[in-house]
Amino acid sequence: MPALTDVLAALDALWPPERAEQWDAVGTVCGDPDAQVGRVLFAVDPVQEVADEAVALGADLLITHHPLYLRGTTTVAASTFKGRVVHTLIKNDVALHVAHTNADRADPGVSDALAGALDLRPVRPLVPDPADPAGRQGLGRICELDRPETLGEFTERAAARLPATAQGIRASGDPDRTIRTVAVCGGSGDGLFAEARAAGVDAYLTADLRHHPASEAREHSDLALVDAAHWATEWPWTELAAAQLDEISDRHGWDLRTHVSRKVTDPWTAHAAAAAPFRVFAPDPASASPA
Amino acid sequence: MPALTDVLAALDALWPPERAEQWDAVGTVCGDPDAQVGRVLFAVDPVQEVADEAVALGADLLITHHPLYLRGTTTVAASTFKGRVVHTLIKNDVALHVAHTNADRADPGVSDALAGALDLRPVRPLVPDPADPAGRQGLGRICELDRPETLGEFTERAAARLPATAQGIRASGDPDRTIRTVAVCGGSGDGLFAEARAAGVDAYLTADLRHHPASEAREHSDLALVDAAHWATEWPWTELAAAQLDEISDRHGWDLRTHVSRKVTDPWTAHAAAAAPFRVFAPDPASASPA
Amino acid sequence: MPALTDVLAALDALWPPERAEQWDAVGTVCGDPDAQVGRVLFAVDPVQEVADEAVALGADLLITHHPLYLRGTTTVAASTFKGRVVHTLIKNDVALHVAHTNADRADPGVSDALAGALDLRPVRPLVPDPADPAGRQGLGRICELDRPETLGEFTERAAARLPATAQGIRASGDPDRTIRTVAVCGGSGDGLFAEARAAGVDAYLTADLRHHPASEAREHSDLALVDAAHWATEWPWTELAAAQLDEISDRHGWDLRTHVSRKVTDPWTAHAAAAAPFRVFAPDPASASPA
Amino acid sequence: MPALTDVLAALDALWPPERAEQWDAVGTVCGDPDAQVGRVLFAVDPVQEVADEAVALGADLLITHHPLYLRGTTTVAASTFKGRVVHTLIKNDVALHVAHTNADRADPGVSDALAGALDLRPVRPLVPDPADPAGRQGLGRICELDRPETLGEFTERAAARLPATAQGIRASGDPDRTIRTVAVCGGSGDGLFAEARAAGVDAYLTADLRHHPASEAREHSDLALVDAAHWATEWPWTELAAAQLDEISDRHGWDLRTHVSRKVTDPWTAHAAAAAPFRVFAPDPASASPA
Amino acid sequence: MPALTDVLAALDALWPPERAEQWDAVGTVCGDPDAQVGRVLFAVDPVQEVADEAVALGADLLITHHPLYLRGTTTVAASTFKGRVVHTLIKNDVALHVAHTNADRADPGVSDALAGALDLRPVRPLVPDPADPAGRQGLGRICELDRPETLGEFTERAAARLPATAQGIRASGDPDRTIRTVAVCGGSGDGLFAEARAAGVDAYLTADLRHHPASEAREHSDLALVDAAHWATEWPWTELAAAQLDEISDRHGWDLRTHVSRKVTDPWTAHAAAAAPFRVFAPDPASASPA
Amino acid sequence: MPALTDVLAALDALWPPERAEQWDAVGTVCGDPDAQVGRVLFAVDPVQEVADEAVALGADLLITHHPLYLRGTTTVAASTFKGRVVHTLIKNDVALHVAHTNADRADPGVSDALAGALDLRPVRPLVPDPADPAGRQGLGRICELDRPETLGEFTERAAARLPATAQGIRASGDPDRTIRTVAVCGGSGDGLFAEARAAGVDAYLTADLRHHPASEAREHSDLALVDAAHWATEWPWTELAAAQLDEISDRHGWDLRTHVSRKVTDPWTAHAAAAAPFRVFAPDPASASPA
Repeated sequence: MPALTDVLAALDALWPPERAEQWDAVGTVCGDPDAQVGRVLFAVDPVQEVADEAVALGADLLITHHPLYLRGTTTVAASTFKGRVVHTLIKNDVALHVAHTNADRADPGVSDALAGALDLRPVRPLVPDPADPAGRQGLGRICELDRPETLGEFTERAAARLPATAQGIRASGDPDRTIRTVAVCGGSGDGLFAEARAAGVDAYLTADLRHHPASEAREHSDLALVDAAHWATEWPWTELAAAQLDEISDRHGWDLRTHVSRKVTDPWTAHAAAAAPFRVFAPDPASASPA
Repeated sequence: MPALTDVLAALDALWPPERAEQWDAVGTVCGDPDAQVGRVLFAVDPVQEVADEAVALGADLLITHHPLYLRGTTTVAASTFKGRVVHTLIKNDVALHVAHTNADRADPGVSDALAGALDLRPVRPLVPDPADPAGRQGLGRICELDRPETLGEFTERAAARLPATAQGIRASGDPDRTIRTVAVCGGSGDGLFAEARAAGVDAYLTADLRHHPASEAREHSDLALVDAAHWATEWPWTELAAAQLDEISDRHGWDLRTHVSRKVTDPWTAHAAAAAPFRVFAPDPASASPA
Repeated sequence: MPALTDVLAALDALWPPERAEQWDAVGTVCGDPDAQVGRVLFAVDPVQEVADEAVALGADLLITHHPLYLRGTTTVAASTFKGRVVHTLIKNDVALHVAHTNADRADPGVSDALAGALDLRPVRPLVPDPADPAGRQGLGRICELDRPETLGEFTERAAARLPATAQGIRASGDPDRTIRTVAVCGGSGDGLFAEARAAGVDAYLTADLRHHPASEAREHSDLALVDAAHWATEWPWTELAAAQLDEISDRHGWDLRTHVSRKVTDPWTAHAAAAAPFRVFAPDPASASPA
Repeated sequence: MPALTDVLAALDALWPPERAEQWDAVGTVCGDPDAQVGRVLFAVDPVQEVADEAVALGADLLITHHPLYLRGTTTVAASTFKGRVVHTLIKNDVALHVAHTNADRADPGVSDALAGALDLRPVRPLVPDPADPAGRQGLGRICELDRPETLGEFTERAAARLPATAQGIRASGDPDRTIRTVAVCGGSGDGLFAEARAAGVDAYLTADLRHHPASEAREHSDLALVDAAHWATEWPWTELAAAQLDEISDRHGWDLRTHVSRKVTDPWTAHAAAAAPFRVFAPDPASASPA
Repeated sequence: MPALTDVLAALDALWPPERAEQWDAVGTVCGDPDAQVGRVLFAVDPVQEVADEAVALGADLLITHHPLYLRGTTTVAASTFKGRVVHTLIKNDVALHVAHTNADRADPGVSDALAGALDLRPVRPLVPDPADPAGRQGLGRICELDRPETLGEFTERAAARLPATAQGIRASGDPDRTIRTVAVCGGSGDGLFAEARAAGVDAYLTADLRHHPASEAREHSDLALVDAAHWATEWPWTELAAAQLDEISDRHGWDLRTHVSRKVTDPWTAHAAAAAPFRVFAPDPASASPA
Repeated sequence: MPALTDVLAALDALWPPERAEQWDAVGTVCGDPDAQVGRVLFAVDPVQEVADEAVALGADLLITHHPLYLRGTTTVAASTFKGRVVHTLIKNDVALHVAHTNADRADPGVSDALAGALDLRPVRPLVPDPADPAGRQGLGRICELDRPETLGEFTERAAARLPATAQGIRASGDPDRTIRTVAVCGGSGDGLFAEARAAGVDAYLTADLRHHPASEAREHSDLALVDAAHWATEWPWTELAAAQLDEISDRHGWDLRTHVSRKVTDPWTAHAAAAAPFRVFAPDPASASPA
């Protein structure tokens, strides 16, 4: 069995920490570099439920996409829920390692896995990394569909192929418009509207879109928007990453056992459709004053 | 018919601009203070579709909840979508006035209207305004239900009573837990989780919740979350505000004609439920590695 | 007749907006890109009097040197004097376009026009633009006189040749010193004293000099200072710019009618010379104590 | 003869340093607290010419209104003009003391002296000091005229009564409008336009007004503006201050000899009126294009 | 045995965390609030050697004066020395709690213990806490000696009574001057020179004084300085704090076993006196040039 | 005799001011550039005692390593101790010039002189200046010993060879460990621990080390630390610099008389060793509770 430090070196080669954003906090959160690693669990979120799963599984290493501490802490006391995760992991000899924006930018990276889950063909990054002369690394992916479909069909495809969540998929735009090219960005992508417009794609699929950015994007151009659960857009990467580590393990003869958590850590557990049409939206447009 | 300046004085008495947040931009965006006002339209968003509605209606004044320019601009050229709105309004003699966080904090305010739409009984503000000795002004409202219901029932109530939107309602928590008290906050309320926990309510209904804040709130305590469309949580206020201006108009003998826009300016126009269960969430939990 | 968007493209080629200072706000302030342009007015200041002149003239486009909004605004309500200008222009279909520090730096630019009005020969920029390999663009101009004259004569030349203003011309230095080279900078040039000293010129002509910068410059070296009305130093550019647009119009067969505003928008309308010598400056220098 | 430290204590009682603005640098710039003081010179500017006058006069203490170093320095080497002043003063045992915004705010202060020179009756501060319950300290003064006069007459009064400078007096507004009340502020007063408008005075006399603030003030309201040399608006205070120190000297039996510098340290030494009307301001308003 | 949460409540009553400085990081660093506490170790520094001592001792709680993380961290991996401490403590069920500037300001606090070790009589805080009406809480202590002694004698007293360290005690000032009053401040006290001067004490004892602050303090006034090892000035507090917790334990019948670490965590382990006089300081003061 | 300006030009060639740190304040603090220079004194600190020595010596120029004013001042009044130094120097025609971090980085520089005093062989800078292609300029020096010695022996060497100070030398680490390579940095070097570790040296000698940085450095790695008086680590440079100026003087035929101050301006004047072992460090480790 390899030592943790050897596995970490392999992970850092896949997702070099220096490629993470300045504000990000990637790398090893807890664990002893000399410990032996036999079993590895991949997940999106380092929440208690996932830490418990790692313990139950007998994992020596938990690799998540999201940082446990994005901003620095001066305490890991178990009276906080994050400190409880740290105690659980250290007490049970489970190391925690994070690959976040360095995995977003990698080739293949988070948005490649997302494109793969949706059966889209990635063409190039939405925001190419200036340091990559090959032009394959960067945030988001511009993708092509094998054959055109309507926005309505594309939305159904997202609902069918992404991991199922209670919240489902939201879309904005004429359901009959034709979609030939799509920009995708795993996670919260509301900072890349200008790039999606500049790319000239027909639609942009990402997560966590709020009223004002989405509304302004829709006023600004006719780019269709498709919004999925943040977790669902990043989960496909855990399968990709596990396969990458499997391949490395085989190459080194490490005999690692890799696992992918299937716990849905999207916080939303139920969805209710609105009654349509709502009563105040009366069919009589002439009726104006609410009296 | 009153002059615009007279109507604005009445609006400023309802929603004093100095009660708005420091970062906010409330007040009159365009219009001539000496113009006569006969017809007024209320809406949530100052988008082109709403500006066109105001023109079609012959309105002299459009009152919206959201600012057109939250950050300062040095141009209103019609080559931008916001400048196009300004041109439409000025060319057609429609003034635009904004009541945003000053309306949020008022008594009655945006969250009172939201509570009313949901048939909840507001008890006190979630964040009381220190400047109000009566303790009735402030952000959000802590509310009581007439009789306890489950989270599932409460979510259905929100779906049934709020203006219908394509995105519907999301909820997080055990659907069978009992809900007796609820904090509500119209608009994006993810800055008030700590206050909702401190208030000891069973659930918190607001809008625009993203993965990380919602997930951390759920890890932090068992507070149930209910998330509606931003627009849907604020629309009830337009009816309340119109009624308030009607009452003022009657008192002054102004004979104003007030209208409430029924255009759904929530950007989301379609929703697709996920296929459940998604195939990778296989019934066999023993299968670990994705191979 | 060309569309506004075509005329703006020509103006942006003359004075590329990206050459403006970081803090500046150049470009189109109001107007519809699809409107037709037949008549254009040039002026220094976008004040109400000038907006009224544009309307009276039937202009479709007003081009000014000074921005209407240098800092961003969230309102163009006509209750403010700038909002009144916006209403006047939009109601009367007059677009407003600003060329400010991008025109200062152009070749030919504002200081070339100033030098031309003074019959000086521009040799090179006072602050060359590092991005211009030809070394002709930049702020201010270093100029040569055809033949040497005294500071007194140079001051009289400025008074005679610049557009007349009530405030006239101020000078600092020995009136009999010989002037062979002059730095000129249209507008407020008190940030360029060090450059003028480094250039080794005999005098520096600019505007808006206040006590402390001027006094310190005079203590620092013997550079003579000549101060004119801000407006008067920039007005010559409006004639130059109009001629440039005429030439473009001819080339495209646009048949534009260009005009230059002759309204003096320098705020000062009267000047009174001091009584000399003032009584406390008694002829008896021996008298020291005011008793 | 008193020690410098005793004289400074008296000056600090007249103009308490803690009443100066946060950004200001008042107090003693050089000098030995134990030195004896027999002769004192007052002046507006601590320039070399004034330092030389102090030396020629045999002064032990120079008191100026303007700081020598408003921002901190790490060198007083005589290779800089300010360091040359320091060397001159220290070599000749002349202390330098500054009373700047603490003298502006005092009662009586700089603007009282200015009002006195203009024969105006100060009524109250333009910006009252919140720490003064009597309401007499603060920046600027609101003044009444003994009897109304036109703006033209008031401008002539300023020209006749303020210390003569080459630049004279500028005015903005209808020369025939009646002036009954005036706000005055010695030095650069362009930060107090809003206060002058709020005070409802007919005119505002101050110094160092530049194009943009003055132009915007004139667009904003009909407040007349009168602009004098910065030095001339502050010189009257040197006579007032000398008289105050004379009185203190008499009271303590110090037998000080106080002097007031009559050197005009306004940097402008010549003025040339514009030729009127300037040729381009042709009588024919129909001629539009400069061709 | 009490739960950790009960012991922490008692500690927070002794040293309320809200009295710590804004920049400080006090409170619980690791540990489970529900764990039982039987044995407690007090120490100055949370270093590995002390963590190992806590484990060897079977302690359930380690209380230190210095924070482990003064600035936030995003990792506690055992590849860092601080993370190694966290792993050691969590693996061995030892909680870590920090009382730093809240203990400095307490009554009795760190400087009281320091005064006690030196046999000085604390009179009042050096920087009284404005929130304490009794005037007993605050940083540092002003102390009186039972009878006057020379600075030399006082320095010897410090060397004899403080915990022994290799670096010993440094002093600055005339060894024969009389010391009647002393300000003391446990830890790095170079921010309180002005307060010590204002208090009019004869000497100031603190730690970690560097060249520039100490040199400037000596140039500024004749205040004598005495500098001890940082650790040695704070160690006396660990005995005081242990006694305080013993008393609480007795009162509650908790039967806690408290211990005080005697490990010297001052980093300096050896000291060498300079050869005196150094050769370049030749007895011939006339020899000036090094040649 | 050369003029001051000529000597300064030579000094600026030795220690170019533009190589100083951004926050530093090097160059000429007082003096007249036209004065004649015959005698020069070098010292570490520009304190009153050194200024008096310069006057007594008849020096025309004092060159110190430390700035008099590191942060800007608005006063040089003799009521402050720094202003007293300025008055002393200007009254006695002594110029003051500072070479601080520009001398630290020079080749040879401050750390070369320190290495020389210790008989170490400098190999390369600890922090090479990226602007020096030869790789010889920069902060600190990595040095080799002629033959290995123990840390104890190296500490004794430092005590014997550096200028004697009361505080002596502190060391941290196993006294028997072998030292082959040492990093040295004159002055406060606690910002360069990471560079010293990266260089792989056995020990790091510098000054002004405080508890927290030193303790953390010792926890972080086994790098031995040696701490001398700040003044003692920089004094050797004054001899080096004097020799450099002597050589320049000879070359120009200036016939300068250079002197090096032997006044010990380290503030510490006495040291007392701790009684060992301190009583509370009893031999019985079983005794735990302080009772």
